[in-house]
Amino acid sequence: DGSSVESLDYEVIENHAYREEQAQRGKLYVGYYVVVKWFFALLIGIGTGLAAVFINISVENFAGWKYSLTFAIIQKSYIAGFVVYVLINLVLVFSSVFIITQFAPAAAGSGIPEIKGYLNGVDTHGILLFRTLIGKIFGSIGSVGGGLALGKEGPLVHTGACIASLLGQGGSTKYHLSSRWLQFFNSDRDRRDLVTCGCAAGVAAAFRAPVGGVLFALEEVTSWWRSQLMWRVFFTSAIVAVVVRTAMGWCKSGKCGHFGSGGFIIWDISGVLFSGQEDYSFEELLPMAVIGVIGGLLGALFNQLTRYITYWRRNYLHKKGNRVKIIEVCLISLITSVISFGLPLFRECTPCPESDPSSGIECPRPPGMYGNYVNFFCGKDNEYNDLATIFFNTQDDAIRNLFSAKTIHEYSAQGLLTFLVVTFGTAVPAGQFVPGIMIGSTYGRLVGMFVVSFYKKLNIEEGTYALLGAASFLGGSMRMTVSLCVIMVEITNNLKLLPLIMLVLLISKAVGDAFNEGLYEEQARLRGIPLLESRPKYEMRKMTAKGVCGNRKVVYLPRVVKVADIVFILKSNNHNGFPVIDHARSGETLVTGLMLRSHLLVLLQSKVDFQHSPLPNDSRGGSLPIRHNFSEFVKPVSSKGISIHDINLTPDDLEMYIDLAPFVNPSPYIVSEDMSLTKVYNLFRQLGLRHIFVVPRVSRVIGMITRKDLLIED
Amino acid sequence: DGSSVESLDYEVIENHAYREEQAQRGKLYVGYYVVVKWFFALLIGIGTGLAAVFINISVENFAGWKYSLTFAIIQKSYIAGFVVYVLINLVLVFSSVFIITQFAPAAAGSGIPEIKGYLNGVDTHGILLFRTLIGKIFGSIGSVGGGLALGKEGPLVHTGACIASLLGQGGSTKYHLSSRWLQFFNSDRDRRDLVTCGCAAGVAAAFRAPVGGVLFALEEVTSWWRSQLMWRVFFTSAIVAVVVRTAMGWCKSGKCGHFGSGGFIIWDISGVLFSGQEDYSFEELLPMAVIGVIGGLLGALFNQLTRYITYWRRNYLHKKGNRVKIIEVCLISLITSVISFGLPLFRECTPCPESDPSSGIECPRPPGMYGNYVNFFCGKDNEYNDLATIFFNTQDDAIRNLFSAKTIHEYSAQGLLTFLVVTFGTAVPAGQFVPGIMIGSTYGRLVGMFVVSFYKKLNIEEGTYALLGAASFLGGSMRMTVSLCVIMVEITNNLKLLPLIMLVLLISKAVGDAFNEGLYEEQARLRGIPLLESRPKYEMRKMTAKGVCGNRKVVYLPRVVKVADIVFILKSNNHNGFPVIDHARSGETLVTGLMLRSHLLVLLQSKVDFQHSPLPNDSRGGSLPIRHNFSEFVKPVSSKGISIHDINLTPDDLEMYIDLAPFVNPSPYIVSEDMSLTKVYNLFRQLGLRHIFVVPRVSRVIGMITRKDLLIED
Ligand SMILES: Nc1ncnc2c1ncn2[C@@H]1O[C@H](COP(=O)(O)OP(=O)(O)OP(=O)(O)O)[C@@H](O)[C@H]1O
Ligand SMILES: Nc1ncnc2c1ncn2[C@@H]1O[C@H](COP(=O)(O)OP(=O)(O)OP(=O)(O)O)[C@@H](O)[C@H]1O
Ligand SMILES: [Mg+2]
Ligand SMILES: [Mg+2]
Repeated sequence: DGSSVESLDYEVIENHAYREEQAQRGKLYVGYYVVVKWFFALLIGIGTGLAAVFINISVENFAGWKYSLTFAIIQKSYIAGFVVYVLINLVLVFSSVFIITQFAPAAAGSGIPEIKGYLNGVDTHGILLFRTLIGKIFGSIGSVGGGLALGKEGPLVHTGACIASLLGQGGSTKYHLSSRWLQFFNSDRDRRDLVTCGCAAGVAAAFRAPVGGVLFALEEVTSWWRSQLMWRVFFTSAIVAVVVRTAMGWCKSGKCGHFGSGGFIIWDISGVLFSGQEDYSFEELLPMAVIGVIGGLLGALFNQLTRYITYWRRNYLHKKGNRVKIIEVCLISLITSVISFGLPLFRECTPCPESDPSSGIECPRPPGMYGNYVNFFCGKDNEYNDLATIFFNTQDDAIRNLFSAKTIHEYSAQGLLTFLVVTFGTAVPAGQFVPGIMIGSTYGRLVGMFVVSFYKKLNIEEGTYALLGAASFLGGSMRMTVSLCVIMVEITNNLKLLPLIMLVLLISKAVGDAFNEGLYEEQARLRGIPLLESRPKYEMRKMTAKGVCGNRKVVYLPRVVKVADIVFILKSNNHNGFPVIDHARSGETLVTGLMLRSHLLVLLQSKVDFQHSPLPNDSRGGSLPIRHNFSEFVKPVSSKGISIHDINLTPDDLEMYIDLAPFVNPSPYIVSEDMSLTKVYNLFRQLGLRHIFVVPRVSRVIGMITRKDLLIED
Repeated sequence: DGSSVESLDYEVIENHAYREEQAQRGKLYVGYYVVVKWFFALLIGIGTGLAAVFINISVENFAGWKYSLTFAIIQKSYIAGFVVYVLINLVLVFSSVFIITQFAPAAAGSGIPEIKGYLNGVDTHGILLFRTLIGKIFGSIGSVGGGLALGKEGPLVHTGACIASLLGQGGSTKYHLSSRWLQFFNSDRDRRDLVTCGCAAGVAAAFRAPVGGVLFALEEVTSWWRSQLMWRVFFTSAIVAVVVRTAMGWCKSGKCGHFGSGGFIIWDISGVLFSGQEDYSFEELLPMAVIGVIGGLLGALFNQLTRYITYWRRNYLHKKGNRVKIIEVCLISLITSVISFGLPLFRECTPCPESDPSSGIECPRPPGMYGNYVNFFCGKDNEYNDLATIFFNTQDDAIRNLFSAKTIHEYSAQGLLTFLVVTFGTAVPAGQFVPGIMIGSTYGRLVGMFVVSFYKKLNIEEGTYALLGAASFLGGSMRMTVSLCVIMVEITNNLKLLPLIMLVLLISKAVGDAFNEGLYEEQARLRGIPLLESRPKYEMRKMTAKGVCGNRKVVYLPRVVKVADIVFILKSNNHNGFPVIDHARSGETLVTGLMLRSHLLVLLQSKVDFQHSPLPNDSRGGSLPIRHNFSEFVKPVSSKGISIHDINLTPDDLEMYIDLAPFVNPSPYIVSEDMSLTKVYNLFRQLGLRHIFVVPRVSRVIGMITRKDLLIED
């Protein structure tokens, strides 16, 4: 399975073609390049924002239509309503899983671990293609609209990254949607920056939290960060916020169906509904710490269960083909529908509390789709069903209801516990962000209820506890801290809660870390994505570079090499880089640089560099001929590229030679054999390398470079 | 002047003593170390928070007392009031400048460029000492309380960094305030992290903006960033916010004199005063863009003028000694006092507008120190003096008044222009943050006034424009973007303004960048701090490592070296690192590593490693003897350390030998002679190096390291 993953090359290959191309480019080019970068940041922002709006409008309309139809039918018959409800869900979910399995298999799952891997330096095949983007958008509409315990947040991050990557390579070549003048960023290095922007844009779109988006990209996804990038990432996120806001303004007048009044609901809790607590007293810190501990424990448990189930699904269930996958998801949809419709039926309704007109909350909610206090299967008109309020609703609405202030005693402990267990159970195979918020806010609200009845005098809102619960569960499961904190603050638009959220996150992360790794790391491991953490392992202090290489013989290439030899070498191993060795006049060997497998394949395929003579090119006088454009060597994103087995060479070709000198990377990074692995690791990780040469102790130093040498004034 | 600056050593010197020490430490030690790190983050937060509270309480009390005294006296005589006002200011400013010149010269100036330099890898002498901390705190109390155009923001960043650094080295050894068990972080590398926390804490304290503090540290100050650090930095900032909030709660009941109702005023504009605009229309974007352009132009002008004046002061004025410095500052204080008292006298008062009780703003302001509509030198009781409202006030109050909403037409264009010119003039020699906000909000409000009278129908607040103006000026001068944006949002607690602030910042930064560099970079250059930018210069693409070293002969040391030779070498140059060369049995030379000047000096001073024989130590069998603790080699922060001229060696000593093998860094980073300087620069900058060895092309590769080799499971 690891074979579907390959490292990216962030190194600048300073070969002959590159140097020529650089020499031709003036300072003007640099300016142009910067402008294009910003323009792309703008496009990524607009694209991701529109995708988010599209997904939300679709989901809200499907779900809204589904619920209003069901409510209309259950006025006459609950059974007919149930059947219709189940069927609609099934159709939506089926279409989603069909699209994904048949058309875009790489779009399955949250996508965040893969994107994280991409930004860490490993490319998972298919992850950033056009078809994956399409599959992701329509897949998440179907599954979220169909009521599965999934959010649109992870998919949005993936969507943003796909948009960014497609822009970076100038569109999709396969679907003839590419444009030459957009093919600007033809190195992995440039694309990495764009994908970082795309990630931030995705989070910003999902939560309408531009700062949170930047911090998420910074904390959770990227592995390299430059401060110039920050401003561009922030710009992208803000553009997303503006696009979403504009679209929502436009929809307010009812032009977007059900979306006008619902949708993007997580984002609206800052208004009337969630005024939150302005103040908190010292006594409340203890229950809040308890929430943190619960969050850490449940989050770790969640990760562990998710891990087992994912493992089992990958290794047993999904081996059996696509049909099993489709059946599996439809079954889950069926179960979810039955539970969300059925459980509230068994629940006795509660009489409405005395209404407080100033709070703006009516009980039961007026006809329409949104609000607390849902009247469902109740005998009397002024009653509500607390389970239906959270179960028989879209997830966004359920969260909004759980977070809502001024609704003390709306839910019973029993109802919340039921919801907690059920959501936990259904979320394990699927969800990450939104189900996590639901789980967390449920037990948060439970704790809040106890606090309300315990400290009777204090001004406590159960909604605040729900919010803290959500933060704690996400913290305990994902182990993000800063970005989560900021996202929560941006969602609620209440900066005063910041220290509380921090406290809870600190505790839940610490508790969770005692048990296992974060959700994304676990998933990356399960999917075989070899992430390099930012810190070297402790054992590396005692290892050396030479030790880790062992006695493996290095496979190298001579400077002028026979085509047959290249083919043999490339077939006999799957290394991706080869040192190139030349002989000096004195007869001693000299390492001239590093040759990449992908570049060798390009040379073999084009054949223009084949020569009959086994002598170096430049020995016949004059400079090296340039027959290649630098962009020919660029490998497309997320594809395997060409393989040695795809290349047809005639017996004549095999007898020819190639002079590799113009194509090698003449300055790979080198380390001395007895450097400790910690330092090698830092070098590799910080600079985003793919290959390091381990060399024997040098015999001479011909110069020292210090800060003074690098301070060049222009 | 460059001689007062020296590079820091972030490299891990993996010498013998270090390896021994590492070997003795178990995994438990790592856990302990992490706990101490977090504990220190807590302490830094508390310390910086308390320092901020202390500074604010003092400033508010001095200023409050000054203004109430003056107001009391001017009821009888304006001349007596003027004299008292001028004298109080003079005394405060004199005490400040006296403390700084006599006791803590390193505390002069904002300190941010030096801290930035520290985190970039260069240590300015004296910048992080205990006396600097004390000087900074009391100096800024005097000068801000005395009404100079200075803020407490820059000083707070420096204060935070000092506190962090002192904690890091376990207190101040000079003042016998150190504690051995606190001396945990005895490498530059660890201290760097602490100082980063300190910076963020300073900004968080200055603006009560924890997220802004983190982003400021990230964007503007640090040069290296690891995602683990982020959480710790965020924790520190949040602790600061909690400490400040608690202190303010405690002070509300009047226990802190004038502080209860004023102070930390910038932070309170989110309440009644600044409700800001909730919405904005499309037409307003044009005037806002204009604000951005003005901000860019004025900011660049400000930087340029500051640069000339700073240059002139450093090179002419301050050469003449401390007395001139003191006289200079006192003169500035005198001028400031005369202007702030005198100009309002020449201004005719304006009749109060019809009061709107719902806005909660009275005209003229009730007796007491804080509020809009100051009655000063007016004929009638219900009049106010718009110049006095902004001039004759602490800066925080002036800003608050400028930002205030629901006070349309409070200021006349003439009044604002006068204020703008004067503040600009007095701010140039001194201020950065707060004067910048004042300048910006003045022209912002001016633009706002025109917009109000132009688009009569719209719901426009002049205060919002003042805020945007402030952002634009800071953006045009400091060229920070993300952190400034977040700080502004946190100050106003209004996330809806985010896109507007971003737009303005984007424009003002772009306009400013067309003219000159950011304020801190310019200042760093003027002060001779050699900052390495994060991006290599364009010219470096065409240079190679060998080219930059030129034909300079490398000064090296043999493995076993005569003491007299060391002394000669150290005296004959001031290089800080020397390659150590050994001879293999085959007779060829081998580079065994890098020896630092500071380590050589420690060896010379302690003398315990002197030996009579010129033979290597280990050739006499057995392992190397360890006579040193690793911490002996640690250089204290911000001090020159020992010099070769301070070391006394007897003629006998000079005849002895030292075997350097146990002390060299055996694995310095090496680059091949023809690596392009861009790549060398990246290596140097990203890893925070101090020395790189340039070596000839290697003749052999003994191993390849790829991602697979670094994925070690524990
Ligand atoms: N030219 C070579 N000669 C000898 N060993 C090599 C060579 N290149 C790589 N190796 C070794 O072979 C193993 C796998 O190499 P490979 O090139 O597949 O790298 P990788 O870690 O899988 O990363 P990538 O994603 O680039 O393939 C590594 O342990 C590496 O040390
Ligand atoms: N051992 C050496 N032999 C020859 N040249 C050296 C040696 N060490 C440094 N140099 C050169 O001398 C110049 C100044 O060296 P120096 O060691 O003072 O470094 P620096 O840039 O001032 O940084 P630092 O702050 O560490 O002193 C640099 O151009 C460097 O290349
Ligand atoms: Mg491989
Ligand atoms: Mg020097």
